[in-house]
Amino acid sequence: MDKTAPQQCLVTFLPSGRSIPLAVGETLLKAAQQVGLHINASCGGSGFCGKCRVIIRAGAVEGGGNEKLSAADQSAGWRHACTAVVKGEVTVEIPASSGQLSGGLSTGVPERHRTQLRRYDLEELRRAGLLQPPVEKLFLELPRPSPLDNMADAKRVIQGLHNQYEERAMVVSLSVLRKLRRVLREDDFRVTVTLARPVHPHRGKNFLVNIQAGNWTRRSFGLVFDIGTTTIYGQLIDLNSGAIMGGEGDYNAQISYGEDVINRIIHAETPAGLETMRELTATTINQLIARLLAGTGTEADEITSITIAGNTTMTHLFLGLEPHAIRRAPYVPVSTFFPPMRASDLGLALPSHCVALVFPAISSYVGGDIVAGVMGSGIYRSPALTLYIDIGTNAEIVIGNREWLACAACSAGPAFEGGGITDGMRAADGAIKDFSLDPATLEPMNITIGNRPPLGICGSGLLIIVATLLTHGVIDRRGKFKRQPESPRLREGRSGWEFVLVWQAEGGSDHDLVINEVDIDNLIRAKAAIYAGIKTLVEEVGLAMADLEQIILAGAFGSFIDLDAAMAIGLLPEVPPGKVTYVGNGALMGGRLSELSNHIRRDVVEVVNRMTSFELSEVANFKEQYVASLFLPHTDLELFPETAKRLGISNGRDETIRPPNLL
Amino acid sequence: MDKTAPQQCLVTFLPSGRSIPLAVGETLLKAAQQVGLHINASCGGSGFCGKCRVIIRAGAVEGGGNEKLSAADQSAGWRHACTAVVKGEVTVEIPASSGQLSGGLSTGVPERHRTQLRRYDLEELRRAGLLQPPVEKLFLELPRPSPLDNMADAKRVIQGLHNQYEERAMVVSLSVLRKLRRVLREDDFRVTVTLARPVHPHRGKNFLVNIQAGNWTRRSFGLVFDIGTTTIYGQLIDLNSGAIMGGEGDYNAQISYGEDVINRIIHAETPAGLETMRELTATTINQLIARLLAGTGTEADEITSITIAGNTTMTHLFLGLEPHAIRRAPYVPVSTFFPPMRASDLGLALPSHCVALVFPAISSYVGGDIVAGVMGSGIYRSPALTLYIDIGTNAEIVIGNREWLACAACSAGPAFEGGGITDGMRAADGAIKDFSLDPATLEPMNITIGNRPPLGICGSGLLIIVATLLTHGVIDRRGKFKRQPESPRLREGRSGWEFVLVWQAEGGSDHDLVINEVDIDNLIRAKAAIYAGIKTLVEEVGLAMADLEQIILAGAFGSFIDLDAAMAIGLLPEVPPGKVTYVGNGALMGGRLSELSNHIRRDVVEVVNRMTSFELSEVANFKEQYVASLFLPHTDLELFPETAKRLGISNGRDETIRPPNLL
Repeated sequence: MDKTAPQQCLVTFLPSGRSIPLAVGETLLKAAQQVGLHINASCGGSGFCGKCRVIIRAGAVEGGGNEKLSAADQSAGWRHACTAVVKGEVTVEIPASSGQLSGGLSTGVPERHRTQLRRYDLEELRRAGLLQPPVEKLFLELPRPSPLDNMADAKRVIQGLHNQYEERAMVVSLSVLRKLRRVLREDDFRVTVTLARPVHPHRGKNFLVNIQAGNWTRRSFGLVFDIGTTTIYGQLIDLNSGAIMGGEGDYNAQISYGEDVINRIIHAETPAGLETMRELTATTINQLIARLLAGTGTEADEITSITIAGNTTMTHLFLGLEPHAIRRAPYVPVSTFFPPMRASDLGLALPSHCVALVFPAISSYVGGDIVAGVMGSGIYRSPALTLYIDIGTNAEIVIGNREWLACAACSAGPAFEGGGITDGMRAADGAIKDFSLDPATLEPMNITIGNRPPLGICGSGLLIIVATLLTHGVIDRRGKFKRQPESPRLREGRSGWEFVLVWQAEGGSDHDLVINEVDIDNLIRAKAAIYAGIKTLVEEVGLAMADLEQIILAGAFGSFIDLDAAMAIGLLPEVPPGKVTYVGNGALMGGRLSELSNHIRRDVVEVVNRMTSFELSEVANFKEQYVASLFLPHTDLELFPETAKRLGISNGRDETIRPPNLL
Repeated sequence: MDKTAPQQCLVTFLPSGRSIPLAVGETLLKAAQQVGLHINASCGGSGFCGKCRVIIRAGAVEGGGNEKLSAADQSAGWRHACTAVVKGEVTVEIPASSGQLSGGLSTGVPERHRTQLRRYDLEELRRAGLLQPPVEKLFLELPRPSPLDNMADAKRVIQGLHNQYEERAMVVSLSVLRKLRRVLREDDFRVTVTLARPVHPHRGKNFLVNIQAGNWTRRSFGLVFDIGTTTIYGQLIDLNSGAIMGGEGDYNAQISYGEDVINRIIHAETPAGLETMRELTATTINQLIARLLAGTGTEADEITSITIAGNTTMTHLFLGLEPHAIRRAPYVPVSTFFPPMRASDLGLALPSHCVALVFPAISSYVGGDIVAGVMGSGIYRSPALTLYIDIGTNAEIVIGNREWLACAACSAGPAFEGGGITDGMRAADGAIKDFSLDPATLEPMNITIGNRPPLGICGSGLLIIVATLLTHGVIDRRGKFKRQPESPRLREGRSGWEFVLVWQAEGGSDHDLVINEVDIDNLIRAKAAIYAGIKTLVEEVGLAMADLEQIILAGAFGSFIDLDAAMAIGLLPEVPPGKVTYVGNGALMGGRLSELSNHIRRDVVEVVNRMTSFELSEVANFKEQYVASLFLPHTDLELFPETAKRLGISNGRDETIRPPNLL
C-alpha cells in the first residue's frame, strides 16, 4: 500500500450489500453517496436535521453530533451518517426511514380533485393548424439525378422540402451530410428527413438534423421532462397524435447531496461538484428514458426531441452552468434562455440527432417549470385574472391574464414537504394525508397514504391537521394549544405542548406521532410567506386580493391541497371553490404542448419576455404583509370572511390580536 | 505468434530510417503510406505511371510490373514500390526523384508577372465600412448586477452588445454559458466576446462563441486555407488590419494515394478509406497551422475563424463526405453549401470556439477554390467580359462579368503538372522552366528552377518548349517533327521521334532528357480540351471568342504560364497581353477577403446562386470544338491571327489540314 495515500477500509451497506473502500476519516454519508445509495440528508450533511439515521451492525464509527439520538438508540447502534466517521471496516444498515422512499411517484392529480382538472385542448390546436412540432419528420419522394439534373444531393433534398412542404432556409448538419449520399440511394431517393425549426420562422433557419431511407414519419416520438429538486418526471409523447404513451418518475439522484437547491448549489461550488450534480441528473433522466422506451416498445433512435423544464437551479446543474450567483443577493442566474442543443451533448442516452429544447426561465427562483406551467394551464390566453401557484420548499407565484403577467418566488421552508416538522415525512406510504377530530373527545381519525399504519405527517396532512385543530378550537389563531378541554392527547413534550395524533401502539412508528407548537409555528411561517407573497404581488400591480378570479394549483403538493384547509389556515386567498383548478404537473403539461407545437414554443418566448418579475425582498411592503400573515388565517379577517364564519369569530379586524414585532 | 494472423516482416526505409512491420504479400507503397513517407504514385498505385521507383538495399521483394525499368536498373535493385511485394525483411531507399519534393512551395506570382498582379482593394472595403469579419471580437464594459438590476449574466451580455454595438438576435453557445459567470467576474464585468455572424443579418442569428475577461480585441486572428489536390496553402490574417502575417504551404499528405482526385475518391470508397483521406488532410493543415503560429508568435486560442476553400473533392474528403458520386456520371456532389462548423469538430488543432467557414462549390468539378478566386479577383463586380481560368489536371473556367457568370470544368490530364510526359516533373528545383533554341543549330538553352542541373520538364517549361519548337519550325502544326534540318538532337527513341533537350552528361539526370511526339501529343490533347472548353462555354452563352475583354490566370501553374507560348500553342485565346492578369492563388485571395468581410461572404452566396454551370460532356458542340483544337494553335487560324503571323502561315483556314476523325 502506498504510504502517502490515506488508509482505506471497507464500508458495507445493508440491506443492499453494496460495499466501497473509504478513506479513514470520511463519513458514512459520503460512502453512501459514492456507492450510489440514498440516505436522507435534508440539511445537506450539516448534522442539523437528524434524518440520516443508520444502524451500525458490525465494526465501529467515531464522531459526535448524536444529540438527537436517545441513549437507548445510541447503544443500539444508531448513528447519524453525516457525522459518523469511519475508522475501520464497518457494516451499516440503512433503515427504510432514512433511505430512498419506495412509494410510487405520481404526476397526476388525486381522484377527489380530478373533476376539476383542466386540460389544455389539443384538438383546438389541431383545428387551428398549430400542431406542428418544433422537431418534425417529413417524407420526401425525390427525382433521381440525371445528366440534366445533377444538382448536389443536399440541394435535391432542400428543393424537395420546398416543393413538397414549402419549407425554406435550410441548414444541413454535418452528420446528415456525412450519410446523405448513402441514405438517398438506399430506397431510391425516398427519404424521411427530420427538421428542427427555429422559434420564429423568419428569424432563423430550419436545421436538417437527420435523414432516414424510406418513410418513417409515423415513428416520431418526443420526450418531456420536468427536473424537480426532489423528483424528476418524464413522459413519452407520440408526436403525430399528441398522445402520452407513457410516464415515469423517480427521485432526483442529487437528493443525496441535500434536499433543497441551496445545498445542491453549495456542493456544485466544490471542485468537480458541478460535474457530479450534472451527472446525477443525467443518470436519473437516462434511467427514466430507459423505462419509458422499454414500456412502450420504442427505440431511442426514434426520439426526435426532448423538451426539458426545471427550476432555474436544476436547469443550471443539468446543463453544467455555474449556479453560484443564484444563492447570493442579488440572485443572478447564468442564463434564462438556452439554445437548442444536441441531447447527446448533455450526457443523455439519446441519438445525436435528437434535439434538446430547454424551457427558458424568468429569474433565479422562477424557473422553466413555472413558465411551462403558465403555458400548460393556458393562463396567458385567459381573460380571467388568475393566480398560478406551485408550492414546495419555494413557492412560485404568477398573477395575470392574457394582457399581462407578473411573478415572484418566496421561500416557504420545507414544512410543506414534511421537513422541519417533528414527525414530518414525504408523501409516501404511511403518511397521514387526512385527519378529523371528535369535537367532544378530541379523538382523531388519521387516514394514511396506502392505508398503512401511520408513520408520520406529509405536507397536505399537516395542513388538514392544523386547520382541523383550529376550526375545533384546539389551537388559537396564534397556533397555540388552548389546553382545553383536557385530554390525554394534549401534553407537554420536549418541545413544549403537543397533541398526540397516533399512539405508538396504534401506529407504525417506534414512538407516539405528535404535532407540537413548534411544528404549527413552522407551518404558520411557511403559509405566511406564501400568502404575503401573493398579496404583495397583487398589490404591486395595483390590484386587491378580491380581484382574483381564479386560482390554479400546480405541483405535486398543490395537487393534494385540501382547499378548505388551505383557506382556513390562510395559505391561499379565499375564492369560491369552483374557481380553483388543479393542473398537477404543469411543467409536463406545458412541455408536452410546446413539444407538439412550434406555435406554443413561440408563445413561450413571448410570455417570458412579457413577464414582470418581482424580487419580494426588494419590495418594502413584503415584510409587513408577512408579519400580518403570521396568524390563522390572517390578522385581517376581512380577507377570510368564510373562514371567520366557520370559526365563529367576528367578521372584521380582531383588535385583540396584534402581531409580534419581528422587525 | 498467432497462427491465423498473416506473417509480418520489417520494412525499413532509407534515408529516413523509419521502419514498420508489414504483412507478407503487401506492397512497399502501402508500407510507405503506413509509415507516413511519401512515394510518388501518380497513377494511384496501379503500376501504370512508373514513377514510384525505389532501390532495394537489403533483402528481396517479389512482383512484376517492372517493364518500365531497364535491365541494368533492375539488376541495380530498382523496383516499383506499387508492385514490389514484400516476402521478408527488406531495406528500401526512396530516391529523391520518387520521394516528397523538397522545393519551396510558393503561393505567389513570379517576378516577371508581378507588375500585372491585380490586388483587390482592402482600403476600398474599409472606406465603405464593409471590413466587418464574419467572426469578430467586441469589447464590452457592463454594469455590475445589483438588487434592482439582477438580470441573468447572458442577458447582461446581450443587452451590452445591443447598447454598445447595436447587435441583435443572439444565441449564446453552451460552452460560453458554462464559463460565463466566472469570466464576467474576473475583470469586473469587462469582457471580450467573439461573435459569429450569420451570412444574412436578417435571416439568421449571431452566435456568441467565446468570451474572455478583459479587452482582447487586438488579438483576433484568422486562418485561410486552400486545400488543393496536390498542395495545401495557408495564411494567417490579422482580422483587425487585414494584414497577412504569414503564409505556409506543403504537399497534401493524401498525395501518397494518387495524384489526381479520381484516385483519391477510389481510395475513399474503400472501408475506412474516407477517414484516412480526412485525417491526412487534417494532419497537413495542422502542421501548417503549427508553422504559421510559431512563425508569428500567435496562440491557437487567438484564432477566431478559419476559412477553407478547396476543390469539391478535397472539400468532401476534408469534411468526411462520401465523394463516390463525384466520379461517376451524372457527377453529383453530396453538397455544394456547407454550414458553419466548429473547427475542432473537423479534427483541426484549434480551439472549440474557432469557427470553420467552408467556401461553397458550384458543382462536382467547379469547387470552392474557384468561387473564392472569382471573389478574390473581383470579376463578379467588373463590367468587362472576363475569362477566369485555373489550369491543373482539371481546368476550371469561369466566364462573365457583374451581370452574369457561367462556368465549366474540363479534364486536361496531368500534362501541365509534368504528368504523362517522358521527362515531366513537378515545378521544383531542376525543372526546365524556360527554353530557347538557336534556329540554325537547334542548340537549346534550358533554364531551370533553382538554376540546378536539369532534371526534367515542368508544365510551364513544356509549354515554352513546344511553342518554341513550333515557331522555329522544328515541329509542324500537328506536333510532328519535320526532321529537318537534321541534328544529333533529333533522333528516333523508344516512343518514336524525339528531341534531346539535355544530354545526360550536361544534366542532373541519369539519362538524356528528351521530348518526343507522344509528349507533344499529350500536351496538344490537354490544351485542346481547355481551349474547346472555353470556346464551347463562350458560344453557349451566345458570344464569340473575340468578345472576351480580359483573362485572369489563377493557380500555381497559371502564375507561371508564358503568354506568348500559351497563345502560340492555342491553350489560351489570343487577347492583347495587357489584358491578361495573374492572380496567383485566387482561392487564398478570396478566402482572406471573405474572412475579413461578412459583406463579401454574402456576395459569395449570391455569386454561387447566380453562376450557371455547364456540363461540357452534355454540350453537343464540345467534342467538335475539341477535335478542331487538336492542332497548333488550332484548325482555324482566324482565331490566332498574331500566332499565324509569327508562324508565317496564311491567315485564314488552312484547308490542307483536316482533323482526324476521332468520333
